[in-house]
Amino acid sequence: MPDKKNAFYAQSGGVTAVINASACGVIETARKHRDKIGRVYAGRNGIIGALTEDMIDTNKETAATIAALRHTPGGAFGSARYKLKGLDVNRAEYERLIEVFRAHNIGYFFYNGGGDSADTCFKVSQLSKKMNVPIQAIHVPKTVDNDLPITDTCPGFGSVAKYVAVSTREAALDVESMARTSTKVFVLEVMGRHAGWIAAAGGLAGNGRGEAPHIILFPEIPFDQRAFLKRVAETVRDHEYCVIVVSEGAAWPDGRFLADAGRTDAFGHKQLGGVAQIIAQGRRRTGAGRGKLGHAGHYPQVRSPVSLEDRNCAAEPGCEPGEEDAEALHNQGRLWHHSGLPPLPRTADRRRGLSSIRRRPAQIRPAEKYPGRQKAENQFCAMIAR
Amino acid sequence: MPDKKNAFYAQSGGVTAVINASACGVIETARKHRDKIGRVYAGRNGIIGALTEDMIDTNKETAATIAALRHTPGGAFGSARYKLKGLDVNRAEYERLIEVFRAHNIGYFFYNGGGDSADTCFKVSQLSKKMNVPIQAIHVPKTVDNDLPITDTCPGFGSVAKYVAVSTREAALDVESMARTSTKVFVLEVMGRHAGWIAAAGGLAGNGRGEAPHIILFPEIPFDQRAFLKRVAETVRDHEYCVIVVSEGAAWPDGRFLADAGRTDAFGHKQLGGVAQIIAQGRRRTGAGRGKLGHAGHYPQVRSPVSLEDRNCAAEPGCEPGEEDAEALHNQGRLWHHSGLPPLPRTADRRRGLSSIRRRPAQIRPAEKYPGRQKAENQFCAMIAR
Repeated sequence: MPDKKNAFYAQSGGVTAVINASACGVIETARKHRDKIGRVYAGRNGIIGALTEDMIDTNKETAATIAALRHTPGGAFGSARYKLKGLDVNRAEYERLIEVFRAHNIGYFFYNGGGDSADTCFKVSQLSKKMNVPIQAIHVPKTVDNDLPITDTCPGFGSVAKYVAVSTREAALDVESMARTSTKVFVLEVMGRHAGWIAAAGGLAGNGRGEAPHIILFPEIPFDQRAFLKRVAETVRDHEYCVIVVSEGAAWPDGRFLADAGRTDAFGHKQLGGVAQIIAQGRRRTGAGRGKLGHAGHYPQVRSPVSLEDRNCAAEPGCEPGEEDAEALHNQGRLWHHSGLPPLPRTADRRRGLSSIRRRPAQIRPAEKYPGRQKAENQFCAMIAR
Repeated sequence: MPDKKNAFYAQSGGVTAVINASACGVIETARKHRDKIGRVYAGRNGIIGALTEDMIDTNKETAATIAALRHTPGGAFGSARYKLKGLDVNRAEYERLIEVFRAHNIGYFFYNGGGDSADTCFKVSQLSKKMNVPIQAIHVPKTVDNDLPITDTCPGFGSVAKYVAVSTREAALDVESMARTSTKVFVLEVMGRHAGWIAAAGGLAGNGRGEAPHIILFPEIPFDQRAFLKRVAETVRDHEYCVIVVSEGAAWPDGRFLADAGRTDAFGHKQLGGVAQIIAQGRRRTGAGRGKLGHAGHYPQVRSPVSLEDRNCAAEPGCEPGEEDAEALHNQGRLWHHSGLPPLPRTADRRRGLSSIRRRPAQIRPAEKYPGRQKAENQFCAMIAR
């Protein structure tokens, strides 16, 4: 029988509509296996809580309180934008982490975040072996963009997809109502830095040819201004109005984002925005009729409305605690909800991200000709519907 | 017994979440008074439908179809951004309208829109008397900004208020979750060109001192950059984060909007936007910590979520058909849902709007010191809650 160890859970990066549902799933699953897992500690403000030994003992909470996490907005224990650097750059920080884990008899490390969190799991796993402090590092996926490697559907995405599909439909109905005398071209800018899944979700707003959205701009297809403006003009001529969903990551053929503001965030990612405005200005120059910009808004996209399917998905464990070999688990596909873990070593440069995405060319055509659309619909529909 | 006349209904301007509920209210009420009102025609694409005799005979629709209008998004019959000019400038257009009404035996004109529609009602009413074609022109209010004269609560506003209050709360929870290592200042830009009701709705997100939103910027109070930045810094110091709700109409002391792009729409109104960005740039220059901008997004604000109270309010008639004297009705307060009609002659210049708003100074203080807040909460709470 394995040594009974405690677990540590932390949230990382921007919170999603369902990140606390994942916390709920981790804690409730641990409670079902009290023979193997002792206490579950949660880091206050994410990984910072481990580095500073500022942890919450979730065992002191009632079952009802833990169950309520499924419906709790925000990040229940606090999240953090804090990326541990490479082992060669700041080995001391990893060693501190492992020392804290050893001090609190922590043998399971659940890290709820995106690609950077998966990377941290991998490094902790590597170092803990070297330090002879066996820690099973489990990455719990969380990324609205739905672009984590080896992960087929990412908790958080379903709610964003639902929001974008509904917003596209609503905006289209409004624009259609007034196209005769007012706005003819409506541009909805949505999230998705390198992956077009969120933009693709806008495609669920319509079915038949001629229904909005008429054009979807993906990050995976280089922007062709001439073809784009031609299509806009044709759509306005044929249908009186044109609705465009554009990913914030839409880019020129040379890879520059349509609106690269030149700023980077704490993770070194470029800060985007304003793509819709550039597109609309380009359109105005052609005199193709009145236009209007709509930003779906970052916060509404992340938070409202929650997809029940997404919430359930976020709380669904794919692995059982106490399993020894995470790599074997990965190969068996018995992981925390479809997550590939331990993650592949990952270099976060843009080209790598793009090239991995370009292997999926079927996803990146304009809406009407989008051959993968039916497949995507099947995949999304449960999330969108509930 | 009065002559039995038909009615004409048209939608005007941007559609709201509940504009079709108003259409439902008009048509259902008319059907209850078949002794006085014959058919109800709806204009296709708003008033354009009257000018071009492109009208829909709603009597051909079943009761179930009409009832479904309460829940129908978009503008069911089409709306229009088309402002009839002054009688002196384009009298022919009004005469055409009245000729069409005469041709179809229309004695009731329901015009569902904002201040400009009310103005059109007034002119039609004036001219119809002169032309000896008695038409009772009824303005059915619709304005998300809640700023129509003589109107205490405007259908459409409740849904926007609910959306803004919920979004402010959600964004605040997210920002609070991560303030230690990430965004400390969050700016939510909301609609409201000259009236701060929508921004005020953000104030419902919090209750106690220290709860978000910490600052609300109203169009009615000139922007004081120095005091504002001081308050932001204090709030971050005391609470670790600061949430600001800013009206798109927030302006410098000389009356310029913080982000006046210099463009105007078909109604001659200035196109706004980008206020949050200016404020955040100002804040960054002071080095008060990391910030983030959030646009509530025009379309989500207008459409999602619908407030049930707002929907019911939109469909509630305040006057009975067949009453002869609209002015007397107005004086008795027996009007289409609290609407003041016929409207006062209205000059749409900004100063007039501002001065009329400045008569309500209690509504325009920063959130925490806002003495009218309890009253506003009482007024909004039914809308927000449902």
